[in-house]
Amino acid sequence: MADEVVLHDYWRSSAAYRVRIALNLKGVAYRAVEVDLVAGDQRGDDYRALNPLGLIPLLEIDGHRISQSLAIIDYLDARFPEPRLLPADPAVRALTWARALTIAAEVHPLQNLRVQQYLRHEMGQDKAAIDGWLQRWLGDGLAALEASAPESGLLGGSAPDLADVCLVPQMFSARRFGVPVDAYPRLVRIDAELNALPAVAAAAPDRVKPA
Amino acid sequence: MADEVVLHDYWRSSAAYRVRIALNLKGVAYRAVEVDLVAGDQRGDDYRALNPLGLIPLLEIDGHRISQSLAIIDYLDARFPEPRLLPADPAVRALTWARALTIAAEVHPLQNLRVQQYLRHEMGQDKAAIDGWLQRWLGDGLAALEASAPESGLLGGSAPDLADVCLVPQMFSARRFGVPVDAYPRLVRIDAELNALPAVAAAAPDRVKPA
Repeated sequence: MADEVVLHDYWRSSAAYRVRIALNLKGVAYRAVEVDLVAGDQRGDDYRALNPLGLIPLLEIDGHRISQSLAIIDYLDARFPEPRLLPADPAVRALTWARALTIAAEVHPLQNLRVQQYLRHEMGQDKAAIDGWLQRWLGDGLAALEASAPESGLLGGSAPDLADVCLVPQMFSARRFGVPVDAYPRLVRIDAELNALPAVAAAAPDRVKPA
Repeated sequence: MADEVVLHDYWRSSAAYRVRIALNLKGVAYRAVEVDLVAGDQRGDDYRALNPLGLIPLLEIDGHRISQSLAIIDYLDARFPEPRLLPADPAVRALTWARALTIAAEVHPLQNLRVQQYLRHEMGQDKAAIDGWLQRWLGDGLAALEASAPESGLLGGSAPDLADVCLVPQMFSARRFGVPVDAYPRLVRIDAELNALPAVAAAAPDRVKPA
């Protein structure tokens, strides 16, 4: 089926979780192919042939293979414009991108599984040291987002935008890694409002985890 | 002057270097305000009031304050459309974004000054260990870009795109950190072609370094 949309996915990956949320919000049906990062599937020749960097997510759509979650979502926003995740107004869009990149380019790269594995195995860091590392970088990023978050409504206002799509997986990661989120009450509220949306809830790791 | 464009800059920052290249390619005049990251200016109250995350670059333009280099460049591309750095075709743009994000969200966050300082001071890693860290992450990212780079022309084809704008600072960083670049001959060629453009050359750290 040429029209099938295929997501190379991993249930617990933050970046894949973003793409699942975006696909669901736009009502795009897709087939998920699980790439088990813990088992190292992403380093296998089969997957490297699809994506040389060996990272997920990867989306196969319209005859293209698109990597990098935000590149995928930018494409989806052009291809399936409703609902828009990137605002049309350049200044509003800049704020959306800046918040999304605060997560995707400041926080998330430092919490990645491969980075945690490097700290543990190549640098001999124990769990307490890695926990300290996560507290520092997640704490810095969430504090910056909290300072920029609105008192009411979502980051995108009345409807989710790209930054909201990135926030939900980041809050999931913070809780998973034991980073206290009570210091970020606006983010906690926004995350709860987002998770009340069926499209967002259906993308959650526990909902897509292979049996 | 309401129309003045102000870049909060640091001469050796990769992210600021990207924005300088984009401004120059589009012929946008700007005033640079140096934020000395080594001296810690970015953690001062004055700068935090402008940008809570304490990161540069930050662009003041049209009454807005925009952070995150790729958000800034997306805004500039809407505001000053010629020459375009983000292709209009969604599939071509997705490839441009994916390459740019490979640098901005995979490689660069792991080479950041604050991350290197954390490894040194909080995790007690010596220079050899930090060099190994840089080799690993820059090597992985550059190898992926090399695999995706064209045999001739720039990443953007006949004219620079957002990925080219990110590549030049990344190659500068690789050389600065002693990561061998000979293994990436296409990237070396593209970087040289880009640096032959006066707008790109004028953004180089050595050209903007405060006296």
